Amino acid sequence: MEYINELVQKYANLTRTINEEFINIHPIQRGGMLTPEAFKALVAYGDGYSLCDNCLKGRIDQIENPPVVEFLKDMAKFLNIDNVMLTAAARESKRLVMEALARKYPKRKTVVIDSLAHYTTYLAIEANNLKLSEVPNSENREFNIEAIDYEKIIKKVQNEDGVLPLLVVLTHVDYKYGNYNDPKPIGEICQKFNIPFLLNAAYSGGILPIDCKEYSADFVVCSGHKSMAASGPIGVLGFNDDFYNDIMVNSKIQGNISSKSFPSKLCTVMGCPPVYGAPLITLMASFPTVVKRTQKEVADEESKKANYVIESIKNIKGIEILGKLPKIHPLTNLKTESFSEVAKTHPRRGFFLRDDFKERGIIGLLPGISKEMKFNTYDLTWEQVKYFTKSFIEIAQKYNLL
Amino acid sequence: MEYINELVQKYANLTRTINEEFINIHPIQRGGMLTPEAFKALVAYGDGYSLCDNCLKGRIDQIENPPVVEFLKDMAKFLNIDNVMLTAAARESKRLVMEALARKYPKRKTVVIDSLAHYTTYLAIEANNLKLSEVPNSENREFNIEAIDYEKIIKKVQNEDGVLPLLVVLTHVDYKYGNYNDPKPIGEICQKFNIPFLLNAAYSGGILPIDCKEYSADFVVCSGHKSMAASGPIGVLGFNDDFYNDIMVNSKIQGNISSKSFPSKLCTVMGCPPVYGAPLITLMASFPTVVKRTQKEVADEESKKANYVIESIKNIKGIEILGKLPKIHPLTNLKTESFSEVAKTHPRRGFFLRDDFKERGIIGLLPGISKEMKFNTYDLTWEQVKYFTKSFIEIAQKYNLL
Repeated sequence: MEYINELVQKYANLTRTINEEFINIHPIQRGGMLTPEAFKALVAYGDGYSLCDNCLKGRIDQIENPPVVEFLKDMAKFLNIDNVMLTAAARESKRLVMEALARKYPKRKTVVIDSLAHYTTYLAIEANNLKLSEVPNSENREFNIEAIDYEKIIKKVQNEDGVLPLLVVLTHVDYKYGNYNDPKPIGEICQKFNIPFLLNAAYSGGILPIDCKEYSADFVVCSGHKSMAASGPIGVLGFNDDFYNDIMVNSKIQGNISSKSFPSKLCTVMGCPPVYGAPLITLMASFPTVVKRTQKEVADEESKKANYVIESIKNIKGIEILGKLPKIHPLTNLKTESFSEVAKTHPRRGFFLRDDFKERGIIGLLPGISKEMKFNTYDLTWEQVKYFTKSFIEIAQKYNLL
Repeated sequence: MEYINELVQKYANLTRTINEEFINIHPIQRGGMLTPEAFKALVAYGDGYSLCDNCLKGRIDQIENPPVVEFLKDMAKFLNIDNVMLTAAARESKRLVMEALARKYPKRKTVVIDSLAHYTTYLAIEANNLKLSEVPNSENREFNIEAIDYEKIIKKVQNEDGVLPLLVVLTHVDYKYGNYNDPKPIGEICQKFNIPFLLNAAYSGGILPIDCKEYSADFVVCSGHKSMAASGPIGVLGFNDDFYNDIMVNSKIQGNISSKSFPSKLCTVMGCPPVYGAPLITLMASFPTVVKRTQKEVADEESKKANYVIESIKNIKGIEILGKLPKIHPLTNLKTESFSEVAKTHPRRGFFLRDDFKERGIIGLLPGISKEMKFNTYDLTWEQVKYFTKSFIEIAQKYNLL
């Protein structure tokens, strides 16, 4: 019993009050903050299989109460793509698409990706034993991707492999600089070559408008917990009718003694994707808000917040704003050479910056890092945005950087 | 805007009050009901990436605050196995183990499974393009699995394939009859043949005591949302040191232009398994309770509840209790021929049974099915167990089956 008492103590204080007490500017957390509706749904559907109370067909995507079937249709309409399926996470959506295409086109071996792709795009390629070919970026301050370079890399792969690339991936908004890339010209190139085109919208779907038909995207990957105000983890996978039978693969295995078979289960997602309770219900509960907040005028207002901060801090000594300007997506990356200089002699070293912001009620900075900084103003109130800006300037003043 | 208002209406009422108002006997929901501690943690860590506030190494299994590192050690100790990793769900743990073993032993093609294995065990085999060979059960009333039959099937596979099976799987407690199987003799057989042995404890880990060393199990698979009072979805994968390098595979892929690489990320779980917020924190918060409730005396008391119901209803006309008796795991399956007879002329057909129980405040019966019934008394109070029993008898009386 002593051991159990120890455990009780060890796991007794799993509290986290940061959302009430602090302004959180964490680069990947802003888009996943629960809406009040999602929070209510979370509390109601906290138990593991809560969503399956009225499952009649043994398939989560076929549950009618709560309205999952309707929701998948609404989500497909929202992304303007033919079909939507759920997955454990956006990374899993990518893995699954590559696996499906590798089955469909066994000779094609290379995935073309932009050189700012998320690490999970690389891992999805690795998990499928595929090769990659990167589309370069301009480096320097902007890290810009040129659509025309996609065509060059596709041709290079075609030359080297003797076959077309398996898939072309564009990171709609990248994790590092928050750069927005227009998918349309790249989609047109893919159409010309007849290569499937996947838009990784993990950072954009739920934050910015998405229109897959307009982009000629065959696949779109979104993240509920990253950008759609869902508790998650949950991934969204949108796909065109052309690939329906490749993604929605029914099980064919049969027991040699029992003769059991599971023809209604999808083997691509191991039966039902693991999103049975809180992940899916919170995604559904936040969906109306997500539709609202991705309307152009609301999304534009969010861009303004990031650009306001940038305008106000760009003249701090030894600070350089990285990525394309003006910002479209509010995830922002700064090179902070001057803070890095301060860290050299500061008793708290690289942690001083996080400390200084935390003292002012602002959290979400990566710990221990002072030569680079990422922040995200998404969905902060203007008051919070102004307070964050003021605090930033105060800290710069404290270290004589203004 | 009209469209958005429609959406607001459609997703406005995602409520579920069943846990307060009803007694839930759903066969797969009882073990996943949140503890008060997990509920508190769920509310605190509802946001998507909440657990990653203090992630210093970019790996969820290496987070020290909240104490994930400590937790994985405690969980390994609890299951008495060398290592524990987290996955999206138990099904994903199985898929991952088979994938790892298929890489390690490329000539071995067959997975030996008991014929009461969960459908996801079959799907994990199918997803890895492997074959299966089932160990028979006694059918009839008990559906008993004999350990010695594992040896016969292993030899049969060895004869047919010319190599050993890739893996042997035992379903510790099965989904259908809730039969408990002693893993020890099967573990000994696997040791004799030197075949990896996986214990599928999705229904037992968190409900009954588990001791992998005692069982000679190389792998154990548990389900947080099924049996460990976690919101989930979340899977636990326990594995022996012998397989450490097969499960914990670090990424080797590299960008051909960017030179980016991710050697600290595990490509087997796509970087971090998708359990970043609510799934893991609720598993951790419930863990002390899970340790307590799997102590032999507490687990025995839960078996008694199921056996009490069975003892009281077994003489209802046209009812047959399936599976081994007395129950060890409280998941219970009945053949209910007499209810099926009632359904034939009942205006609500097969749904009448669910209606009759619901009128009495009891939910969780599979909808529309009257010829078979599953229930689970796990963690109900004795008062609730007695009320459920009384209601069952009342319904039998109503249709003259006593």
